[in-house]
Amino acid sequence: MKIVVAKEILKANDQVAVENQETFGRDGVCVVNVMASPGAGKTSTILATIERLLPDLKSGVIEGDIASTIDADKIAERGIPVVQINTGGTCHLDAPMIKGALPHLPLPDIDVLFIENVGNLICPTSYKLGAHMNLVIASVPEGWDKPYKYPGIFAAADVVLLNKADMIEVFEFDVAAFERGVRMVNPDVEIIHISCKTNEGLDAWTENLRTRVGEHLFAGRS
Amino acid sequence: MKIVVAKEILKANDQVAVENQETFGRDGVCVVNVMASPGAGKTSTILATIERLLPDLKSGVIEGDIASTIDADKIAERGIPVVQINTGGTCHLDAPMIKGALPHLPLPDIDVLFIENVGNLICPTSYKLGAHMNLVIASVPEGWDKPYKYPGIFAAADVVLLNKADMIEVFEFDVAAFERGVRMVNPDVEIIHISCKTNEGLDAWTENLRTRVGEHLFAGRS
Repeated sequence: MKIVVAKEILKANDQVAVENQETFGRDGVCVVNVMASPGAGKTSTILATIERLLPDLKSGVIEGDIASTIDADKIAERGIPVVQINTGGTCHLDAPMIKGALPHLPLPDIDVLFIENVGNLICPTSYKLGAHMNLVIASVPEGWDKPYKYPGIFAAADVVLLNKADMIEVFEFDVAAFERGVRMVNPDVEIIHISCKTNEGLDAWTENLRTRVGEHLFAGRS
Repeated sequence: MKIVVAKEILKANDQVAVENQETFGRDGVCVVNVMASPGAGKTSTILATIERLLPDLKSGVIEGDIASTIDADKIAERGIPVVQINTGGTCHLDAPMIKGALPHLPLPDIDVLFIENVGNLICPTSYKLGAHMNLVIASVPEGWDKPYKYPGIFAAADVVLLNKADMIEVFEFDVAAFERGVRMVNPDVEIIHISCKTNEGLDAWTENLRTRVGEHLFAGRS
């Protein structure tokens, strides 16, 4: 009985996710669902990426948090269109929340929309939003063992960024064990080391994203 | 309808939590529910605390993870009684999971039982386990803003440990803003800075816990 209810909720969510993706297609927006632990550096990475996508690709952001507008304020300060969703106690964003946010964004002027999901390595993977790619950000201080403990989110990733890579030695982070864990559940995923402090890897990641956005927009328009 | 189902689940959970607490009372066990983000240092803190509680207070551990036995293996290596619970996809432990683990622990020989919850700042707060205190571990690399973004878990804390405190300067962590955020939702909670790397604060925290355990055991026996 409980399982049936859960399935119905997920089915309803998926239908709205399809509607969201139709809206994105109509307006030529490529959408990135950004998932990570609390404090892994989602907002910093999004900001650094947006800067590097300019001037040819313009971005917008949907911020998901249990409470507060701290992240949305940081984005808005830079003049980037942003909507904050406060989920109350809910541990993930869902498609209806995204649908509700879209009228508040100038979609026709946005090429890339970043959806910053709630900081959580578990719940966000169960809810489709209508995004075109899943970006998972791990961070060095969390430790190398996260792919073994939270395999689902790494399995769902199109790209894995390892943030705070400037701290690899300080935290004695076992890169080989981390990457082996990621590849156990997602053999071909791209893993890129970045640091929002030293800027290491941010150009490489942005070029990777730029290629994906180009392919997506081309496909959408063909 | 959905809300009714959720309430029924929580009510059933709470009944089992009461049973668990009765079991703990019978065997004279003080139980600490340890909650934190992925990689905040739950296992390291538990291990460092267990060492400091010896020889007069003996500990046991229940490890909660989505997958893997990495943490339980670390505990077992030290000869400490431990049970691993793998929740599959579930983002928190619940009282029936704990009840199922108890027969595998030598409860009469254990004074302090640490329950390491799933790494998550949101879901664990909704499920009572039968514990006597909630320990929330924040860590410096996660950033000072966590209490503002995840107020529920900080509100539920009996003690907040700020781990990786040796990194406060490296990460330009705003201690005052962090503590203000914690006190906004939990004015009188004790906040102790610790580092499992430098051992800073671990003796102070263990003495705090030792006092609580003494009061608890005394109350339980009176």
